[in-house]
Amino acid sequence: MTDHPIPTLTDVLAARPHVYRYLQPTPLHPYPTLSRLTGADIWIKHENHQPVGAFKVRGGLTYAAHLSAAERQAGLFTASTGNHGQSIAYAARAYGIQATIAVPEGANPGKVAAMRSLGAEVVHHGVDFDTAREWIMGVAAERNGRFVGPTEELLIHGVGTYALEILESLPDVDAILVPVGAGSGVCATSIVAKTINPRIEVIGVQSAQAPAMQQSWQSGSMVTAPNTTFAEGIATRVPFANTQRIMRHYLDDFLLVDDAEIKQAIVTLLEHTHNLAEGAGAAPLAAAMRYKERFAGKKVVLVMSGGNLALDKLRGILG
Amino acid sequence: MTDHPIPTLTDVLAARPHVYRYLQPTPLHPYPTLSRLTGADIWIKHENHQPVGAFKVRGGLTYAAHLSAAERQAGLFTASTGNHGQSIAYAARAYGIQATIAVPEGANPGKVAAMRSLGAEVVHHGVDFDTAREWIMGVAAERNGRFVGPTEELLIHGVGTYALEILESLPDVDAILVPVGAGSGVCATSIVAKTINPRIEVIGVQSAQAPAMQQSWQSGSMVTAPNTTFAEGIATRVPFANTQRIMRHYLDDFLLVDDAEIKQAIVTLLEHTHNLAEGAGAAPLAAAMRYKERFAGKKVVLVMSGGNLALDKLRGILG
Repeated sequence: MTDHPIPTLTDVLAARPHVYRYLQPTPLHPYPTLSRLTGADIWIKHENHQPVGAFKVRGGLTYAAHLSAAERQAGLFTASTGNHGQSIAYAARAYGIQATIAVPEGANPGKVAAMRSLGAEVVHHGVDFDTAREWIMGVAAERNGRFVGPTEELLIHGVGTYALEILESLPDVDAILVPVGAGSGVCATSIVAKTINPRIEVIGVQSAQAPAMQQSWQSGSMVTAPNTTFAEGIATRVPFANTQRIMRHYLDDFLLVDDAEIKQAIVTLLEHTHNLAEGAGAAPLAAAMRYKERFAGKKVVLVMSGGNLALDKLRGILG
Repeated sequence: MTDHPIPTLTDVLAARPHVYRYLQPTPLHPYPTLSRLTGADIWIKHENHQPVGAFKVRGGLTYAAHLSAAERQAGLFTASTGNHGQSIAYAARAYGIQATIAVPEGANPGKVAAMRSLGAEVVHHGVDFDTAREWIMGVAAERNGRFVGPTEELLIHGVGTYALEILESLPDVDAILVPVGAGSGVCATSIVAKTINPRIEVIGVQSAQAPAMQQSWQSGSMVTAPNTTFAEGIATRVPFANTQRIMRHYLDDFLLVDDAEIKQAIVTLLEHTHNLAEGAGAAPLAAAMRYKERFAGKKVVLVMSGGNLALDKLRGILG
């Protein structure tokens, strides 16, 4: 994998027709009230406005567009209880492909219903996520179908289109803060921003309660770390090699915030932007609040990667 | 005023360049989970995604574009504690015009801060909204500036662009449900939809705790009614003649829902769409839930007119 070339801006440009066949650009809004709170000039990229409530759908559509006829016939297979699964379900429906998504027993019924409502077959298998994933990988192999992991290069190509939208709307941005789970968002953003203007800082954000990707990036080795965060979009226990490789090449910095700060950021975003962010989507604001001096006076884009916060979690956070 | 011609689709088309100079089209998303709950095929027009969180900004921008140089110099004047004020503030800033907005003593500090952050001068005057409005109308006259009421025709022209976006995305829509406050949204929607396809039903929705516009439309006379709703976007005590005139010409029906149903719809929308709606923005879903048999099997667009729900109100509704 290390010999594989890193995706380029050209790959992102090539993904645009596949993304905009089904989606429209998301807004990038300035928020003067958040600017006063942080001391930076704060803009938010609203990937929470996507049809499935998260940025990943850009990648799923790009992936589905590149399947052969035989692969479309065999169907798509993945394991996910979150935004990746909804993205693949959405893309499969757009292209008339059957998606089969494995989830562990006891998976969030709301998310299962959301994937089923997009036409996906959701199969409960095993006691945890890893068991479900290994099983569905076997099923995909048996049926000659594609298993879609969360860091496939075509996903990164598609996701990069949101970064290009940021650069088109706000070419003089100083820093872009991106939440990191598997890393497709931050890799795509850094490829686009650094190619267009290397002086733009691209900064990852993760919870200190799940710092595997941050510690791996910082140490230059693959570090597994405890994962206790409530924010499932950035809840990575084992780092991903493919995205680490890109991050080492491009990323300027990688900040940690506490879950309590992320929860406070969810409340602040509801109050001042009237947008519901999931934990991952609020992590960039938490970082802008915690590291104020680092961003003072700078033009900062926070990527609100998604808004799929469950109602019971929201009640707990507001309560 | 009754001799004045009713705005036309041509007026809405002419407003488009003024709107899209600053804004992009908002999404119209299908929601299968809401469709299962209601028995209709539910789509939501996301005007809550606008930069000031509500549809009215389309009208403000259209209005500002038509001012003479002398009028721009004199400035814009209005009275509002809500989305109308933010819309005028946004449009004034876009065109480099000074906006002066009167609010009563004790106005919501968050909304005052939002208008000030857009560069508007906010002046507290009087104990209630009517006192503030009369005072600022006098100020506007003294300074030869324009006082912008909530139902001016140019506002309706601009607002109509969202209805045109609906028709372009979903030409086979059966019914469009629109919350009614002063009535600019429902008038604009009915002008556009009825001109393009008279079989599309355009239906107003108001709270039974503030039914002045509904009772006026139903009775054919101007009826003042008690106003106790929590939903300030549809809290009309005295009906507006200009919009009533258009509604009598075009509107198919006008439904009432209770505040408790609107609050439940806010919760349902948060749970199933992860969007925060203000009371007005949730009223169409409340109507689709209450009058299920009326919409069964139909393709229904709910206009989520805005998302500016204050955090303390949200806490009260979720708590």
